[in-house]
Amino acid sequence: MAKVMIIGAGGVGGVVAHKCAQLPEVFTEIVLASRTESKCKVIAAQLPRPVSTAQVDADNVAETVALLKREKPDLVINVALPYQDLAIMDACLEAGVDYLDTANYEPPEEAKFEYKWQWAYQDKFTEAGRMALLGSGFDPGVTNVYTAYLKKHYLDEIHYLDIIDCNAGDHGMPFATNFNPEINIREVTANGRYWQDGHWQETAPLKENRSFDFPAGIGPKQIYLMYHEELESITKHLPEIKRARFWMTFSDNYLKHLEVLGNIGMTSIEPVEFEGKEIIPLQFLKALLPDPASLGPLTKGKTCIGCIAQGVKDGVKKTYYIYNICDHQECYAEVQSQAISYTTGVPAMIGAKMMLEKKWAGAGVWNMEQLDPDPFMDDLNQYGLPWQVVEIDQPTGMEK
Amino acid sequence: MAKVMIIGAGGVGGVVAHKCAQLPEVFTEIVLASRTESKCKVIAAQLPRPVSTAQVDADNVAETVALLKREKPDLVINVALPYQDLAIMDACLEAGVDYLDTANYEPPEEAKFEYKWQWAYQDKFTEAGRMALLGSGFDPGVTNVYTAYLKKHYLDEIHYLDIIDCNAGDHGMPFATNFNPEINIREVTANGRYWQDGHWQETAPLKENRSFDFPAGIGPKQIYLMYHEELESITKHLPEIKRARFWMTFSDNYLKHLEVLGNIGMTSIEPVEFEGKEIIPLQFLKALLPDPASLGPLTKGKTCIGCIAQGVKDGVKKTYYIYNICDHQECYAEVQSQAISYTTGVPAMIGAKMMLEKKWAGAGVWNMEQLDPDPFMDDLNQYGLPWQVVEIDQPTGMEK
Repeated sequence: MAKVMIIGAGGVGGVVAHKCAQLPEVFTEIVLASRTESKCKVIAAQLPRPVSTAQVDADNVAETVALLKREKPDLVINVALPYQDLAIMDACLEAGVDYLDTANYEPPEEAKFEYKWQWAYQDKFTEAGRMALLGSGFDPGVTNVYTAYLKKHYLDEIHYLDIIDCNAGDHGMPFATNFNPEINIREVTANGRYWQDGHWQETAPLKENRSFDFPAGIGPKQIYLMYHEELESITKHLPEIKRARFWMTFSDNYLKHLEVLGNIGMTSIEPVEFEGKEIIPLQFLKALLPDPASLGPLTKGKTCIGCIAQGVKDGVKKTYYIYNICDHQECYAEVQSQAISYTTGVPAMIGAKMMLEKKWAGAGVWNMEQLDPDPFMDDLNQYGLPWQVVEIDQPTGMEK
Repeated sequence: MAKVMIIGAGGVGGVVAHKCAQLPEVFTEIVLASRTESKCKVIAAQLPRPVSTAQVDADNVAETVALLKREKPDLVINVALPYQDLAIMDACLEAGVDYLDTANYEPPEEAKFEYKWQWAYQDKFTEAGRMALLGSGFDPGVTNVYTAYLKKHYLDEIHYLDIIDCNAGDHGMPFATNFNPEINIREVTANGRYWQDGHWQETAPLKENRSFDFPAGIGPKQIYLMYHEELESITKHLPEIKRARFWMTFSDNYLKHLEVLGNIGMTSIEPVEFEGKEIIPLQFLKALLPDPASLGPLTKGKTCIGCIAQGVKDGVKKTYYIYNICDHQECYAEVQSQAISYTTGVPAMIGAKMMLEKKWAGAGVWNMEQLDPDPFMDDLNQYGLPWQVVEIDQPTGMEK
């Protein structure tokens, strides 16, 4: 008998609500809260059983505390904006509620992916006897658990880790973004960064790239080295790792559009004087592009996210690849969201289930790889994100 | 002793004014007229001798007639917008002044390049005893004269004609247009069209393309088959031509930008509701792009425009290539415009010179290939657009 509050009513919030609603034996009561309560009501109307909704400005700690004290949930699932993580953690501490999120805190005005702000809450959560589970999405989240699982069952030591995120879906539009195009641009134009022998190495944007042959009929795609937040926690908690990298697929078409839009100044946030009005080009671009929510029913194809770990077992060098294949159309049929939201929302539900069932417990702030991977991995198979481990004995191109 | 009125104070108008001002023995008096007289004054201030300026709305026939009757020029050089050709022809007829332009009339609301509207003035000009010279720019213009020159001196019959326009200049910006991006888009997205055995053949946009190796160190560039207005008059006046085509170079980068801008709706003229205001995306795009006038001093490199004619001379098959090379920076140093405006403006001056010197004379409406090419060709060499003819005895890739 547990009550959960989901804060955030975007694509991921919808998936979390659907998946929690499917498990009434774990999530007895569900509250959906958002700045815009009407978005919660739209999601609620899709669900197989009644849930309640609430309005909350999660930037306002006092307002969130008041809602938490009124609703008395056992756990908050934070799938709001990453800018709001600290305010919601503060509210949970004050109201005495456990906390879970899917993406680490970013200061509003800079794209800085670092755990330092949330790790600084370690003592507060420990003293309060509360648990905070960080990054319980797919990447970060499942990728951390995959790594812990390989370490527990397949390798005594992991020396080289490559996390590879492939979206082989096609929405049929010439160009559209799954989320804020500015964030996309910043990701793509930022330097890459990876862990090598105890230090971070930087690479020029998109410089490190290669072709990788994905399973399940997806075939070869170009992958690009980027920084991603789970690299920070995994290399901290598995200090034996000599090199850890994160790769993402981008189609040539996608990169072409981002390049041109950047070239003509369309991604700028500097206002332009136009017909007596100040217009921010990026805002106007958003108005031209398809609404990301409209892409769900259009998107076909698969995602493939996984980890390749090279290491040793009983003194012998071994390489394993562990991954999930997710189908956009199957996700949409089940929860009215495509696979990008689905692969983030399902692990949030499972992380919450781990906490409510006390399979994962303990006061303090936790990253996913610090906890026992086995029950989480079982639930991935059971609740929509089945995985497989294959031993690699042929070159994959990821050896160097 | 002659007086000329130049209507239009854009880039081409500036070049025509410069070139006419350099020849006081032909162009004794010069009047620059434009809707915006201040633009005329800017040009006038650059010139080596005094010229007068005037304000005129060339869409308004009565206003233009009044100006012509007041100023009494011998000839109007129309380098205003193509939409205004007919109104200016009407004004010239009414005021009893000869007429010259560089681009054929287009109805304001459709991109239709056809001579029919201007050819319909044949009887009016003949009866008035006035001369109208159509299309005295480079292409149309010099390309028509090149064709007539090859026919007069090198080939008894021309069977295959390829007009090839290459701008190998580089302004150093990621993307900018020399003129209205909407016109660019329409050109590039329009079907190609060429003359073959007495009929027009259509091709899908950009479908017909190939590499052509340009002279003067420019080297190989991709050329794309397009429709261009001189094909209509040349195939009418040289009915022996079996096939006539027009090709233009576009860089991959330029085509990439146009494609992306089209994809995201940025070239649309349909208003978009944005922050309570109707915004036309194409207008906003223009506001983002560099001012074309700002590109003049930045542009480096060459243009190469010419004709390849295959035919017979004394029963023997022969192929000739006649072309001009123009350097953007040299043009800018001379007349403060780059080669795109220069190559259009110089032939307008020479066409006017032909008429004022009575080397070209005759009541009615004329296309360039109908007149004796020799004095015009001499003046091209003398006044900034030197040409050469080479006999081709190796395959150029244009045989088919």
